[in-house]
Amino acid sequence: MAPVKKGILQRLDAGEVVIGDGGFVFALEKRGYVKAGPWTPEAAAEYPEAVRQLHREFLRAGANVMQTFTFYASDDKLENRGNKLINTGAQINEAACDLARQVANEGDALVAGGVSQTPSYLSCKSEKDVKAIFKKQLDVFIKKNVDFLIAEYYEHVEEAVWAVEVLKETGKPVAASLCIGPEGDMHGVSPGECAVRLVKAGAQIVGINCHFDPMTCVKTVKMMKEGVEKAGLKAHYMVQPLAFHTPDCGCQGFIDLPEFPFGLEPRILTRWDMHKYAREAYNAGIHFIGGCCGFEPYHIRAVAEELSSERGILPAASEKHGSWGAGLEMHTKPWVRARARRVYWENLKPASGRPLCPSMSNPDQWGVTKGHSELMQQKEATSKDQLQHVFDRSKKH
Amino acid sequence: MAPVKKGILQRLDAGEVVIGDGGFVFALEKRGYVKAGPWTPEAAAEYPEAVRQLHREFLRAGANVMQTFTFYASDDKLENRGNKLINTGAQINEAACDLARQVANEGDALVAGGVSQTPSYLSCKSEKDVKAIFKKQLDVFIKKNVDFLIAEYYEHVEEAVWAVEVLKETGKPVAASLCIGPEGDMHGVSPGECAVRLVKAGAQIVGINCHFDPMTCVKTVKMMKEGVEKAGLKAHYMVQPLAFHTPDCGCQGFIDLPEFPFGLEPRILTRWDMHKYAREAYNAGIHFIGGCCGFEPYHIRAVAEELSSERGILPAASEKHGSWGAGLEMHTKPWVRARARRVYWENLKPASGRPLCPSMSNPDQWGVTKGHSELMQQKEATSKDQLQHVFDRSKKH
Amino acid sequence: MAPVKKGILQRLDAGEVVIGDGGFVFALEKRGYVKAGPWTPEAAAEYPEAVRQLHREFLRAGANVMQTFTFYASDDKLENRGNKLINTGAQINEAACDLARQVANEGDALVAGGVSQTPSYLSCKSEKDVKAIFKKQLDVFIKKNVDFLIAEYYEHVEEAVWAVEVLKETGKPVAASLCIGPEGDMHGVSPGECAVRLVKAGAQIVGINCHFDPMTCVKTVKMMKEGVEKAGLKAHYMVQPLAFHTPDCGCQGFIDLPEFPFGLEPRILTRWDMHKYAREAYNAGIHFIGGCCGFEPYHIRAVAEELSSERGILPAASEKHGSWGAGLEMHTKPWVRARARRVYWENLKPASGRPLCPSMSNPDQWGVTKGHSELMQQKEATSKDQLQHVFDRSKKH
Amino acid sequence: MAPVKKGILQRLDAGEVVIGDGGFVFALEKRGYVKAGPWTPEAAAEYPEAVRQLHREFLRAGANVMQTFTFYASDDKLENRGNKLINTGAQINEAACDLARQVANEGDALVAGGVSQTPSYLSCKSEKDVKAIFKKQLDVFIKKNVDFLIAEYYEHVEEAVWAVEVLKETGKPVAASLCIGPEGDMHGVSPGECAVRLVKAGAQIVGINCHFDPMTCVKTVKMMKEGVEKAGLKAHYMVQPLAFHTPDCGCQGFIDLPEFPFGLEPRILTRWDMHKYAREAYNAGIHFIGGCCGFEPYHIRAVAEELSSERGILPAASEKHGSWGAGLEMHTKPWVRARARRVYWENLKPASGRPLCPSMSNPDQWGVTKGHSELMQQKEATSKDQLQHVFDRSKKH
Repeated sequence: MAPVKKGILQRLDAGEVVIGDGGFVFALEKRGYVKAGPWTPEAAAEYPEAVRQLHREFLRAGANVMQTFTFYASDDKLENRGNKLINTGAQINEAACDLARQVANEGDALVAGGVSQTPSYLSCKSEKDVKAIFKKQLDVFIKKNVDFLIAEYYEHVEEAVWAVEVLKETGKPVAASLCIGPEGDMHGVSPGECAVRLVKAGAQIVGINCHFDPMTCVKTVKMMKEGVEKAGLKAHYMVQPLAFHTPDCGCQGFIDLPEFPFGLEPRILTRWDMHKYAREAYNAGIHFIGGCCGFEPYHIRAVAEELSSERGILPAASEKHGSWGAGLEMHTKPWVRARARRVYWENLKPASGRPLCPSMSNPDQWGVTKGHSELMQQKEATSKDQLQHVFDRSKKH
Repeated sequence: MAPVKKGILQRLDAGEVVIGDGGFVFALEKRGYVKAGPWTPEAAAEYPEAVRQLHREFLRAGANVMQTFTFYASDDKLENRGNKLINTGAQINEAACDLARQVANEGDALVAGGVSQTPSYLSCKSEKDVKAIFKKQLDVFIKKNVDFLIAEYYEHVEEAVWAVEVLKETGKPVAASLCIGPEGDMHGVSPGECAVRLVKAGAQIVGINCHFDPMTCVKTVKMMKEGVEKAGLKAHYMVQPLAFHTPDCGCQGFIDLPEFPFGLEPRILTRWDMHKYAREAYNAGIHFIGGCCGFEPYHIRAVAEELSSERGILPAASEKHGSWGAGLEMHTKPWVRARARRVYWENLKPASGRPLCPSMSNPDQWGVTKGHSELMQQKEATSKDQLQHVFDRSKKH
Repeated sequence: MAPVKKGILQRLDAGEVVIGDGGFVFALEKRGYVKAGPWTPEAAAEYPEAVRQLHREFLRAGANVMQTFTFYASDDKLENRGNKLINTGAQINEAACDLARQVANEGDALVAGGVSQTPSYLSCKSEKDVKAIFKKQLDVFIKKNVDFLIAEYYEHVEEAVWAVEVLKETGKPVAASLCIGPEGDMHGVSPGECAVRLVKAGAQIVGINCHFDPMTCVKTVKMMKEGVEKAGLKAHYMVQPLAFHTPDCGCQGFIDLPEFPFGLEPRILTRWDMHKYAREAYNAGIHFIGGCCGFEPYHIRAVAEELSSERGILPAASEKHGSWGAGLEMHTKPWVRARARRVYWENLKPASGRPLCPSMSNPDQWGVTKGHSELMQQKEATSKDQLQHVFDRSKKH
Repeated sequence: MAPVKKGILQRLDAGEVVIGDGGFVFALEKRGYVKAGPWTPEAAAEYPEAVRQLHREFLRAGANVMQTFTFYASDDKLENRGNKLINTGAQINEAACDLARQVANEGDALVAGGVSQTPSYLSCKSEKDVKAIFKKQLDVFIKKNVDFLIAEYYEHVEEAVWAVEVLKETGKPVAASLCIGPEGDMHGVSPGECAVRLVKAGAQIVGINCHFDPMTCVKTVKMMKEGVEKAGLKAHYMVQPLAFHTPDCGCQGFIDLPEFPFGLEPRILTRWDMHKYAREAYNAGIHFIGGCCGFEPYHIRAVAEELSSERGILPAASEKHGSWGAGLEMHTKPWVRARARRVYWENLKPASGRPLCPSMSNPDQWGVTKGHSELMQQKEATSKDQLQHVFDRSKKH
């Protein structure tokens, strides 16, 4: 029998740093188990050993939270994406819970069941219908007895509030994480106001994940924190950003960058960028610190190494990592040995090796970088009027 | 019982394209199982499931060759690096063979046992001593009955010739791969001359791996091919480059870049870069096409997709990949859907997201970018006179 | 006898576009007649033919305004800079007026006498003392009967208001131009509020010059215009920006960029950037459009060419310029001929030819990019306590 | 009466450093007196005060040579370009000589009469015809008694040899300068062989001007020097490069860069780049050091300042220039004062301020960057069959 672990709120209440894991869809896309575009998590049922291995790597890197690989695993999303899935939504969600639990039990980690934004909301289904969607995933989480719940990756705080209201009914701790930046949600609600609404709806932990780079996400969580404190409320804070540099993003984040999703490589953060991120997040009073798209296990390890004195522990994977480049101390070349020190890596400005490429892009937007007429042709050619409709509705809000 | 597979030479003689796998040390370093600096493969014995999973991902991506994870697994290297290894060299090499064989049997792949350059050679041990080192790894490969042998990652053609001479004694097909660029090996022997020596020593396949980016490696293999043909000899050709852009490398490749090894992220190739590489290599008459450091499974998949008509098959992992971004065809945003086409990705110049960083670096060198006095201090401080000696000897050659 | 010309207000009231000239100190520094650092205009007296030639080039490029080369020509500045000037302030100011008038008479241009910010203000002299400084220059302008007056290059709106109050007494039209960005003046007064104060003080034309790139300056003038209109006031607007790209500036503009003033070359705007600037300024309702530091005559010509249909005239210097690259139509190489068209130059993203350099810098700031201790040493070494004092006072405001 | 000056060969024989001037066509294009495309020097007759002023600025910057502004002033070029020139070739050449002489007499400078490559050669006229073209300009130079002659800007050594043969007949010292890079002339003759032919034809000074950046030009002159010395010959060496960084050029230099000629601004060298260039050229044994397109007077001043101890003199314009940024020592901001030192400017990596632009370009070439069909359309559209013919002939060589 596994020892009884401290719950997420116990840890945060005690001032502990909780390390999250990294995003699964991008990492598994590179490994060949997730399709970019749909981004659905059927691999949990199809290729359990691949998903389990990634969980293990994040655990080994220091993660205290194993999020179930249930992103976009709502029934409406799975159907909408038109995959010929041989597994039902329930099977996928159950398999994801089992994998997360199995690996969590191998170390000091909790299992978090996650629900994310739905096509139902975007296509203007009713609150009742949208909540019913969340409820179906939640039934699996309850059956599998996850440790806590996360409503994450919401562009509209209204939908996130609905999710929190559903999740709260279970009595389990609830975290709520939006994928917005400092300009607020897609209806223009500021980060501070978003946070207040989520806390009032019952979320004990609020924060930001995905869509923006670490410093932008930390900044946005700070704005949430200010809003909550100004309202006289209390909450814990979480942040799980991209592992991509996105200084050129507009309000909808990296989706609109021309490089999304198949040309983002030059933007990937180094482990040293992660040290700065972890310190910045910690200093901002954010204690649940993890990652989203682009994070590989070594990124999470860097977060855990930066905060090792605060946490009183180095992650298991540090057995294979010299602190601040110390592994180079034995190199035969003196100038490579000279890199085995913190000041070197902290100040390196890494070159892209791409002299024909710029350092920033103009985000794509409706009718701007692609001419309107080209987009219209595109639309006719693909006859995706239905999707167009969804898009149009979203924009009208 | 597994079906009898065509051997490596049968395939190449028949004009087939053989897809190699990617490098293990960088990929497993990111996953937390290899230590940068020593770069030794003890994980084969310590964490077999992690190594097996990576083999599987490369197989799934289209690789026809499973190289045993035995890089730097010679006894002199394992001792030199001072790791407190609980496993002996023989145990590591045996475990690596078992893992490669197990996964190779799951698909259409061959097992290749690999030996690489040794500290013994660099510290001027005799030909006999160096060959004895190779022989110890080879004994394992024979015992485990690998399908063919690769001598890879040699900076000096002399040592590579010795390796080929040892490997040839087994009667198994032998490939030989240097980690040099167009300027030749560390003693100044040109790529063409290197190739001639290797072929004369008995290698049936010759080529280049590591140290340089794909286009530079293809260029160097072309020079090898010209040398071999000019000498009236015959060979097959292989290339397994870095997945990093290195236009600014000097003759010793990416080791001397200031970003090596912990700041190389902005240089990582996209999948579309890999399409160009695969086509360029194929057009150059190179039929054994794989990868080395920096390659992730999706990079190998891109190589296999580019050459799918030549090979008559798509890799298994393409079930999770729309050709040329086709997975984006269902996206809700029209400007993201507009990215679902070949011309878009072929022409994208991806931004680094790092406006404070340059696009190229000056390679580090003895006494140049680091002042000589600083290096001397460094040397005293670390008291690595022994290593210094190794380095000095290497430079005197 | 010269024909009577329409005055500045007549032109602007009639909706005409008035083209300004470019900055003299940077242009003449490159030609060898102004010293970077002091930036004082003694060349007006020392090398009149060089100053006259630059006036002529701007006139030929389309400028309707010849600003007297009297930047930093207040007595306190000339003394403070410690130059062993053989000419008195009055001599310099008189010579500058004569040169401007001589060239203005050669075409359709007006002479504008200019006063700029003073060391007296920065060192906290009284309003009376500061106004006395302005008055001395003004006496020359009256004697020489300039056509109108410009108070330009003020970081503090308070000092600019004082200048306007002095200039107003002459009865001549008064323009007032600050060197601030969207964040406002050095005391934190917003652009809109600054503009209101200047208009209330009597300026008929308000705007921005120097310190920021064209788009930033246009944006700031827009904010001024909004402020003025909101306050129910009326004014004309002017903009005379840098010819350097400064996306990375802080609130004090290009002075704080590490490249100031001797490494700004890669930031120089092309003529095509100037077309965009002229159009943007015109569309914003700004009708007095010129340049400041970095502008060469061809930059002003580009502004005049962009607005040639609005002005009904091409500048004289266009005799030596094919519109949108038309001069290349006769080139022997077809690919150079292919550049003789607007769409080519409008879309070109010009390379820096500097792969080791970044695209942005971090602005220098007190105690940030230079360590505080280093700056302290610097201070002691140079014993510039007096200047330090000036600086400290300025920051305390 | 002017004092008798030492001739060019006397100076070089005595080991003196001779500073050249900068290129006139680019500098005067920016000032509004030369049309890009034709690049013809009719301004010498039309706007003598503008040309005289530029001469004076280069003299003041330290130049010992005033080249007559007679680039492309051969009759065939002036006619070919279709300008409605009101002045004949002879008038232009004479005016240019007078201006150069007038300013040379104001200081320690010599007048050099220059001839450059001709359309006659490119369109395959006979040696006799081409030489007749040179002879016409030469007649003016003799009449005006220039101090020495320069045959400069030749892409084919054959034509340069013809020019030298004509110039030699005058008995005046002859310099010959090609616009080629390390790959040699347009017929593939190496720099070393080119130099040998020019020296054998009678040139006492040989070297390179235009088309490439300083370091590339110095490298090419070094190859010329090696060739001359290997052949047992003797010569003096000159270099007059671009003031643009061109690391991405092909064999025909900056003409093929997409930025030529209206988007080269980000490539302009700083004064500090010029210090490095001057030192590098001097160390290579090149003693006639000047500039070509892109050079402004302050660039020449930087060359003269770098070599002031070798020359024993600072240029006149240094009265307005603090050495290595010393002019900033009095700045009010401590971090700007901190820039008043050599180590700061020597190590600065200046940012482009253009995050959307790359650091290198792909040179345009026939049928490569512009599709062949597009070029064909272009050709038909402009009906420049004649020019096309010239181009084709040139390529066939």
